Amino acid sequence: MKVVHLDKVEKTRPEMEGAEGVYKQLPISKEDGSPIFSFRVFTIEPGGHTPYHTHPFEHLNYVIGGRGAIVNENGDEEEVCEGFFSLILPNEKHQYKNTSDSEDMVIICAVPKEYE
Amino acid sequence: MKVVHLDKVEKTRPEMEGAEGVYKQLPISKEDGSPIFSFRVFTIEPGGHTPYHTHPFEHLNYVIGGRGAIVNENGDEEEVCEGFFSLILPNEKHQYKNTSDSEDMVIICAVPKEYE
Repeated sequence: MKVVHLDKVEKTRPEMEGAEGVYKQLPISKEDGSPIFSFRVFTIEPGGHTPYHTHPFEHLNYVIGGRGAIVNENGDEEEVCEGFFSLILPNEKHQYKNTSDSEDMVIICAVPKEYE
Repeated sequence: MKVVHLDKVEKTRPEMEGAEGVYKQLPISKEDGSPIFSFRVFTIEPGGHTPYHTHPFEHLNYVIGGRGAIVNENGDEEEVCEGFFSLILPNEKHQYKNTSDSEDMVIICAVPKEYE
């Protein structure tokens, strides 16, 4: 069993080409013995965004705080805020954008442990 | 891609022996095409709790709101509130308890899709 508050988890700048103003935390991963999945947390600063990209694995997301948009593979944007869940399927093009002027957007991004 | 707010997800009483005052939602599952994992949400009412039990699969948790305790396999309790993550390994005895008099405790409980 591992129990940890997000505030106690190291925050790093991920190496993600095309990302702007993004920090990463890794509260649960294979390092903790998680058999299949990892829980990452991305903090996206005002005006920041994740890459508009695809990858061969899915992710499951939850918006912990702030507000922003998810861009889908057609370039359409859907507004999200605290309380939204999303499922991005393998190879589905997507991006998370913080559309606020003042508030961080914070999201859980759960991925198969092989990827993080 | 699926995008949904928790408020739009049906809330049911789960069939869990030993649970008291617990509601379940299933925002992301195999029904949505999720390849490996499901995201469930449990709402535990004041004074309520999940079963003190074990099962052969892990779960990854995030406390969305409220406060309470996680009971470990020795019967020791760790206090948690919004912002806490936890990893319960396969076959590890555990329980979630809402210790508040007035506020719901709401947690994400991510499990392999075979189990939900």
